[in-house]
Amino acid sequence: MIILHRSSVTALLLLLMPGVVRLQSHDSIPSRYEQIARTLMETGLGGSHAHRMLTRLTAEAPHRLSGSPDAAKAVTLTKQMMSDLGFDNVHLERVMVPHWVRGSVERGALVHRDRTAKPLSVCALGGSIATPKGGITAEVVEVKSFEELRALGTKAKGKIIFFNRPFDAGKFSTFEAYGGAVDQRSRGAVEAAKVGGVAALVRSMTLAVDDVPHTGTMGYVDSVAKIPGAAVSTLGADLLSDMLKKDQNVRVTLELSCETLPDAESANVVGQITGTEFPHEVIVVGGHLDCWDKGSGAHDDGAGCVQAIEALRLIRELGLKPKRTIRAVMFMNEENGNRGGRAYPVAPQREGEKHIAAMESDRGGFAPRGFTVAADSLVLRRVLGWRPLFEILSAGQIDPGYGGVDISPLMDRGVPGFGLHPENHRYFDYHHSANDTIDKVNARELEMGAIVEALLCYLVAEEGLE
Amino acid sequence: MIILHRSSVTALLLLLMPGVVRLQSHDSIPSRYEQIARTLMETGLGGSHAHRMLTRLTAEAPHRLSGSPDAAKAVTLTKQMMSDLGFDNVHLERVMVPHWVRGSVERGALVHRDRTAKPLSVCALGGSIATPKGGITAEVVEVKSFEELRALGTKAKGKIIFFNRPFDAGKFSTFEAYGGAVDQRSRGAVEAAKVGGVAALVRSMTLAVDDVPHTGTMGYVDSVAKIPGAAVSTLGADLLSDMLKKDQNVRVTLELSCETLPDAESANVVGQITGTEFPHEVIVVGGHLDCWDKGSGAHDDGAGCVQAIEALRLIRELGLKPKRTIRAVMFMNEENGNRGGRAYPVAPQREGEKHIAAMESDRGGFAPRGFTVAADSLVLRRVLGWRPLFEILSAGQIDPGYGGVDISPLMDRGVPGFGLHPENHRYFDYHHSANDTIDKVNARELEMGAIVEALLCYLVAEEGLE
Repeated sequence: MIILHRSSVTALLLLLMPGVVRLQSHDSIPSRYEQIARTLMETGLGGSHAHRMLTRLTAEAPHRLSGSPDAAKAVTLTKQMMSDLGFDNVHLERVMVPHWVRGSVERGALVHRDRTAKPLSVCALGGSIATPKGGITAEVVEVKSFEELRALGTKAKGKIIFFNRPFDAGKFSTFEAYGGAVDQRSRGAVEAAKVGGVAALVRSMTLAVDDVPHTGTMGYVDSVAKIPGAAVSTLGADLLSDMLKKDQNVRVTLELSCETLPDAESANVVGQITGTEFPHEVIVVGGHLDCWDKGSGAHDDGAGCVQAIEALRLIRELGLKPKRTIRAVMFMNEENGNRGGRAYPVAPQREGEKHIAAMESDRGGFAPRGFTVAADSLVLRRVLGWRPLFEILSAGQIDPGYGGVDISPLMDRGVPGFGLHPENHRYFDYHHSANDTIDKVNARELEMGAIVEALLCYLVAEEGLE
Repeated sequence: MIILHRSSVTALLLLLMPGVVRLQSHDSIPSRYEQIARTLMETGLGGSHAHRMLTRLTAEAPHRLSGSPDAAKAVTLTKQMMSDLGFDNVHLERVMVPHWVRGSVERGALVHRDRTAKPLSVCALGGSIATPKGGITAEVVEVKSFEELRALGTKAKGKIIFFNRPFDAGKFSTFEAYGGAVDQRSRGAVEAAKVGGVAALVRSMTLAVDDVPHTGTMGYVDSVAKIPGAAVSTLGADLLSDMLKKDQNVRVTLELSCETLPDAESANVVGQITGTEFPHEVIVVGGHLDCWDKGSGAHDDGAGCVQAIEALRLIRELGLKPKRTIRAVMFMNEENGNRGGRAYPVAPQREGEKHIAAMESDRGGFAPRGFTVAADSLVLRRVLGWRPLFEILSAGQIDPGYGGVDISPLMDRGVPGFGLHPENHRYFDYHHSANDTIDKVNARELEMGAIVEALLCYLVAEEGLE
C-alpha cells in the first residue's frame, strides 16, 4: 500500500526522474543485508546470551552506583566478558566519578497529633545531604508545582515541602510523563529551600501504585541553602495527601544518613571488532554500567550494556568482518554526573580516531519498536532507506529524536546519535527502584534490542552514513 | 519517506490518474478522526478501566473452563458490567458446551530402577480420559516427531510416549513457534495409541523454562483407542530426557482423574451501542470468556473480553454516536469446542442483522502493534488507508492475517475479520498455565488494545468497509 500526501505528488514525480534524487527503493538494499537481518534474528533469539550476561551482571554486581564496590566489580566483570568473547582491544579508560553513599539510615514517618506514627516508605534522592541525627520532624505543605510553592510565601517556612504532582497517565510516552514531573525531583530541594522549607519530599517518579520509593538524581545550587531531598512511594504520597486533607497539622519525620565522599576512580569499559578497511572509523554502541543502588539496574541500564556486548558477539558469530570498527562501550556514571560519557570523547585513546555514529540503549530491555535518530536530515534519510531491513525485525519505527545521555558528548561534537526505542509502558514501574531486577526482563525482548543494534552497527560499518 | 518497489511505478502512475483508483491519501482522512484517535488514547490511558474489570473478572471467576461454576459466574458478571455501563440490549445467548473436569488427582513421577521416585510436574490435557486408579506406570520412549514415533514400530508398544520437540526459539513470532509444536499436544494421544502406547506425555507448549505444566485441548478419533494425555513442565521434560539418556529403563507414573461430563448450558454474553443510522449493520468486537482452569485466564482471554467492553465504554465516554451498531461479545467455549463462536451467527437474534466486520483480541493483553486483516484485498486497502490514524496509537502494523477462532464462523460467512496483534514474546510463558494471572498484565498495555479496538470499531461504524 502506498500512502501519499497530495503535496507529495510533485516530490514523487521528481523522485521518478533519474539523477534528480536517489530513489530510496527497497531494491537498492543488497539482498545479503536481508539475509543478515534474518540470520541475526534467528541466531540471537535461538540463544539467550544477552539475558545470561544480564543475569550474571545483576547477580554479581547488583548495586552499581558510581564509586561503589559493585560498580568496580561490574567494570572487572564486563571487561572479562568481552575478553572471553575474543573482542579486540578490550581495555579500561579511567574516569573519576562522584561518590555519593546512601548510608544505613533511611526513615520516614507520618506523625499524628497524638504523636502516634505510621511509617512512610521513603528513600534519599541521589546527591542529597543527610538530615541531622534523629531526623527532621516538621509540618508538611503539599504542592503540585513550583508556582504553587512560591505563591505560599511565608507559609512554607519551616515546613517539609511535599511535591505531589503525579505523572500524566494520559500520555502515550511514559518518558513524556516523566519529563512532566521530574523537575520536582531534580530541583525540588532548591525551590523548597528558597521559601524556607526544611526538606523536600517528592512523590516517586512512577505510574506504579505501590509502596516502593524511586530514587534519582537531584541538585543543589551554590546560592541557596542545602536541605535534604527524599522520594516517597506513591502509596505513601497518596496516604500523606489524604491525611493532610483531614489534618493540616500532620507532621512528617524524615531521617537520612547519606553523604557525598571524595570522587572515586572508576572506568569506562571498552571492547571492539576492529574494522577491516577503515579501522580508525568507529561506530560506538553502548549503555551505562552504573545504576541506582536500590535495585540491580536490570533495565536501567544493565540491559543496554549486555545488548552492546551481545550486538558485537552476534556480528562475530555470523562471521561478519565489518569494514569499520564497531565498539562496545560500558559508560560509567550516567546516573549522577555523566563523567564517563564526557571523558570518552577526550580520552587519549581517541587520538587518530573518527567517530561516525554512536548508539545507546538506555530506555529498558523491552521489545524494540525501532530507534530514534539525532542527526542531520541527510543522515536520517539514508537510515530511513534501511527501514525495510528493520521491518524484518519488527523494529521499523525510525524517528528523529534523542540519542542518549552517555553519547550526548559525542553528539555535541557532531557525531550522529541513535537511541534504541523499546516499548516503554512498564519502564517507570521499575526505574530507579528496588523493582528494577532481572525477573522483570524478558530474554527475547532483551535479545531483540541487541539484534536491532547489531544490524544498525553493521549497516553503518559497511555503508557509512554519507 | 516514500518507499517504492520499482515494479510499483506503473501502479503508481495509475494511482495518479484521477478516477482510475482512489488515491489513499492522508488528506482523505477527516481531521476529526485524528482528534478522536488522540482523545481515545488520552481518555483510555488516563483511566485504568480495562485493568480494573480484568482484576474483578480474574478474582471473582478465575477458573472459567466451559461448564464450570466460574464460567457461569463470569457470564453473570460481564452481563452485569455491561448493564451497569449502560450498554444497549445487554443479553445472554444460550449455548450448550462441553464439560470436561480435571478432577482432584493429577500426579506424575519419574521412577528409577531402585523404585525411588521423583515428582514430575504434569497436568491432564483438556479432553483426556483418566488413567486407571493408582495410575499407569510404564517405560518411556522419547520422540520429537510422529515420523520418529512411527519408525519405532513395536518398540513403542506398552510404553508411555514422551513427545519432547521444543518450540523453535529462533522464530520471531511465538505463535509460529507454537504452531510448529502443538501437533504433539493435539494429536499426540492418537498417534501414540496407533503404535500401542499407553499414554502420551507432552512437553509443555512454552518457551519458558520452569516447573509449570501448560494444558490445552487434545483430541481423539473414533477409530483409535483412547489413551490419557498429559503435559509435563519444560524442566520436567528436560529432567526426563536427561534421565532417559542415562537409563533407557527409567519408568514414569502418570495418574489422572479427569473426565468428560454431559454437555452443560452456558451462554455468549452480548451488549452493544446501537447504530444511529444503520442499526442492523453490526460490527462485532470480542474475546472468549472461558479459559483453562490452571490460571485465571488473565491474558487468555480475559484481556480480550474486557478490551471489548472497554472499547464500547470509551466510545460512549467520548459521546460518539456511531452510525452502525458496535457490539461486544464474550464468546463461550473457545478453548475446547468453539460452541459459542459457532452458535453466534445462527442464533435467532441474528434475524435481520447484517454483519459488516468482526474483530477479536485473543493473543494476550500486551502492547498492540496493530492488527491482522482477514478480508478481501479491497477491504484491506480501505483499512490501510486508515493506517496514519493507527500510527497515532503506535499500532500501525496492519497485515493480512487470521482474525481469530471465535469469529471464524463469521469469517466463514464472508464477514471481514480483524485480529488484534500485540507483542507476543511473553505470551506462551503464561498461556494455558497457572502463570496466566493478573500480575502478568500491564494496565497501560491492556488499555492500548482496547483503544485500538475502539478506533477500528468506530471507523468501520462510520465509514463502512465498502
